[in-house]
Amino acid sequence: MSPKVTEEHKENRRLEIMRAAAEVFKRKGYDAVTMQDIIDETGMSRGGVYAYFGSKEELFWALLDQIDDSHAAGYAKLLDRYRNAWETIEHFLRYQEKEIGNTHRSLSPAIFEFFSSGWRDADRQPFLVGRYKRAVGDFARFLRAGVKRGDFRPLQEPEAIAQFVISFLDGLSVDVLLLGSEVCDYRAQLDSLRLYLHQVLQIAETSREDGGSQSTTGETP
Amino acid sequence: MSPKVTEEHKENRRLEIMRAAAEVFKRKGYDAVTMQDIIDETGMSRGGVYAYFGSKEELFWALLDQIDDSHAAGYAKLLDRYRNAWETIEHFLRYQEKEIGNTHRSLSPAIFEFFSSGWRDADRQPFLVGRYKRAVGDFARFLRAGVKRGDFRPLQEPEAIAQFVISFLDGLSVDVLLLGSEVCDYRAQLDSLRLYLHQVLQIAETSREDGGSQSTTGETP
Repeated sequence: MSPKVTEEHKENRRLEIMRAAAEVFKRKGYDAVTMQDIIDETGMSRGGVYAYFGSKEELFWALLDQIDDSHAAGYAKLLDRYRNAWETIEHFLRYQEKEIGNTHRSLSPAIFEFFSSGWRDADRQPFLVGRYKRAVGDFARFLRAGVKRGDFRPLQEPEAIAQFVISFLDGLSVDVLLLGSEVCDYRAQLDSLRLYLHQVLQIAETSREDGGSQSTTGETP
Repeated sequence: MSPKVTEEHKENRRLEIMRAAAEVFKRKGYDAVTMQDIIDETGMSRGGVYAYFGSKEELFWALLDQIDDSHAAGYAKLLDRYRNAWETIEHFLRYQEKEIGNTHRSLSPAIFEFFSSGWRDADRQPFLVGRYKRAVGDFARFLRAGVKRGDFRPLQEPEAIAQFVISFLDGLSVDVLLLGSEVCDYRAQLDSLRLYLHQVLQIAETSREDGGSQSTTGETP
C-alpha cells in the first residue's frame, strides 16, 4: 500500500471507532460507558481500538471536536447559501429547534454528564475554556460577516451577543434534558431568542421578509 | 413551656440546622457532604439533628424551598416598592448580577451537583418539575401584575418570557461556574437580557427613565 492509502485507511478506522463510540454514548450517557463497551460496538480487537484512542475521555473529546468543526463549517457554508445574513440566523434557529427536540436521543445527555461530573476537575478546565472561546469566536465572526454585508447593525459587541446565545442554549438544553419538552416549551423560547436577535442586530422587517423569500428560490448571489 | 413557645423553639432549631447545612454545602458542594459534616457544623447531637431532617437530601430540598420562598416574596415586595414595574425588572437584574458574581461562594455549585448527579433519578424528577413550574409561575404572575398596571405590553405569553429568562439564567450560572467570570462575561450578558425584556415588554424609553428617577426618591404609590 502507498503511504497515502495507509493514511486514508487510518482516518477511516478512526472515524469508524468514533461513530461506534457515539452510538454507545447516546445509549448510556458518559459515566456508565467503558472502553470495553466501545470495543464491543466496533467489533474490532482491543489493540485495534487502543491504537487510535487511549481512553474514553480522549474519544469523547474527539467527538466534541468533530461537532465543533461541523458547526464552524456550517456558519461559513450558510453565509454563502443565503443572500441575507438574517436568513442564516433563521436557519440556525431551525437547526437548534431540531437538535433540542432530539436531546434525549442525541449526545447531549452524555455531554451534560461529562461536564457536570468533571466540573471540579482542574485538568479538564483548559479544554472547556478552549471549546467555549471557540464557539463564541465562531458565532461572533459570523455576526461580523453579517455586519460587513450590511445586514446587521448590532447594538452590542458581537462577542457579548454570542455569549448570550450560548448561555441561553446551554441552559435550554439542560432544562429540556432535566424537565422534558412537555414542561419546558423550547419552541416558544427559541421565539424569544429570535426576538432578541432581531432587535439586537437591528433587522428591518422588510429585509427579514426579503431574506425569507429569497432563500426559497434557491438563488445564490 | 406553652405549646406556642415549643413550636417557636422547634422552628428556630430547624432554621439553625439549615443555616449550618448551607455553610457546609457552600464549602463542599453536594456529593461530598455527609450528615456527620452537618451535625459537626451545628454542634448539636446526632439525634438532635435527625429529629428534624432524615437525610442530607431532605435538608437540601428544605434549603431550595427556602430560596424559592424568598424569591416569590421578593417579587411581591418589589412591586409595592417601585411605582413602575420596569424598575422591578432593573432591580431583579441587579440582584442576578450580584448572585452570579458570587456563584463560587454561594449554594450554586452544590445545586449544580445535586441536579446533575441526580438527573437520571426518577424519584427526583417530580420535585424538579414542581420547582421549575413554581419559578415560571411566580415570574409570569409578576409580569401579569405589570400588565395590569399598564407598565408592560408583552409581545409573548408571560409563561414563555418567564421560561426564556429562567433557561438563560440557568445556562449563565452553569457557564460562570464551569468557566469562571473572566471567560464568561455575565455583566454583558445581563445587558442582553435587559435588551430582550425591554423589547418584549414594549417599554417606552421615557417610562424606563421615569421608573429610574422615581425609585431613587423612595416614594411609594
